[in-house]
Amino acid sequence: MARRSGRRPGNPDTRQAILSAAREAFAERGFDHASIRAIATSAGVDPALIHHYFGTKDGLFMATIDIPIDPQELLPQVVAGGLDGVGERLVRTFLRVWDSPAGTAGVALFRSAMNNEWTARLLREFMETQVLRRATGMLEIDPAEAPLRSSLVATQMAGMVLVRYILRLEPLASAPADVVVAAVGPTVQRYLAGDLAGLADRR
Amino acid sequence: MARRSGRRPGNPDTRQAILSAAREAFAERGFDHASIRAIATSAGVDPALIHHYFGTKDGLFMATIDIPIDPQELLPQVVAGGLDGVGERLVRTFLRVWDSPAGTAGVALFRSAMNNEWTARLLREFMETQVLRRATGMLEIDPAEAPLRSSLVATQMAGMVLVRYILRLEPLASAPADVVVAAVGPTVQRYLAGDLAGLADRR
Repeated sequence: MARRSGRRPGNPDTRQAILSAAREAFAERGFDHASIRAIATSAGVDPALIHHYFGTKDGLFMATIDIPIDPQELLPQVVAGGLDGVGERLVRTFLRVWDSPAGTAGVALFRSAMNNEWTARLLREFMETQVLRRATGMLEIDPAEAPLRSSLVATQMAGMVLVRYILRLEPLASAPADVVVAAVGPTVQRYLAGDLAGLADRR
Repeated sequence: MARRSGRRPGNPDTRQAILSAAREAFAERGFDHASIRAIATSAGVDPALIHHYFGTKDGLFMATIDIPIDPQELLPQVVAGGLDGVGERLVRTFLRVWDSPAGTAGVALFRSAMNNEWTARLLREFMETQVLRRATGMLEIDPAEAPLRSSLVATQMAGMVLVRYILRLEPLASAPADVVVAAVGPTVQRYLAGDLAGLADRR
């Protein structure tokens, strides 16, 4: 492929080599343990070129999974106002994104993650490092409790994707956002801020 | 394939022809609208032979999706005692099944449903007709509210499958059953029996 795209900077072959190396590194070692330097070595390029193409390590990671949303833009809307009402705001923002055209790409990513261990790892890393960890950090949730609380939130929201957007089980598939927010918001609220029996034993 | 299996009754070719016809009928028309008579016609056999091989329509349906659990056996344990504490019992029974070897087959079915529209429809029909509708009937939940309540339960439980057993997001993937039951039981309890704002508008 010698064809150049005007939409993205750089040589497309080099860009693809970096993305392949990054995908492998993020899936095998996880976001935290993958280094730009090692990815550059594996792709046969200078680390500076990765920064030039993708900006930060977050930017490189987001490019590997090709998700058409930016958590850095959405999360502040959800956490603004703190823990009070955060469950409702999270579910409302989530539905707005998934009910939009971006939801179609999200469904494709979920489907792929079900059958491809690497994509599953990348999706898990995305949820952990780009969404959940940041959200619990911004909300100042006790770091000892944050991992369990956020993985509980993940069960509810991933299940929403599955039932509303993939299996399309009625009446939830067609339920207005307000009905879903009223029903599911309190669940997320409790997972993030409520008194969860059993948490004490996990500290 | 002329080889005969000693494990199941009947001619394996005939059995397979019935299962193929049944899979198509259940996926295309849904459990309620698929008839044994039409499946028999499509498979070129007598309806009596279907009853001979598979017993009831439920038995035939369960054979099409090859799920190694029997909701008719598990549901009574969950609904015994009525609505009081049903959320906790449902989550505990669910985890016992999914943490067992049967969970491996369940993961395979979920994966397949993500990428195959027919399997997705069969899984949706299974959840609706074999699990959720029966459970809400046994629990005597208001029929006007039962569909939304049970599809909300489905979001939480399907999300548990995804996060704990497929994506294996920690700490939830390794959390002891007691911790998960304490955290998620109240969610299911509220979806089945709690006061859900927005339900009034759906009646």
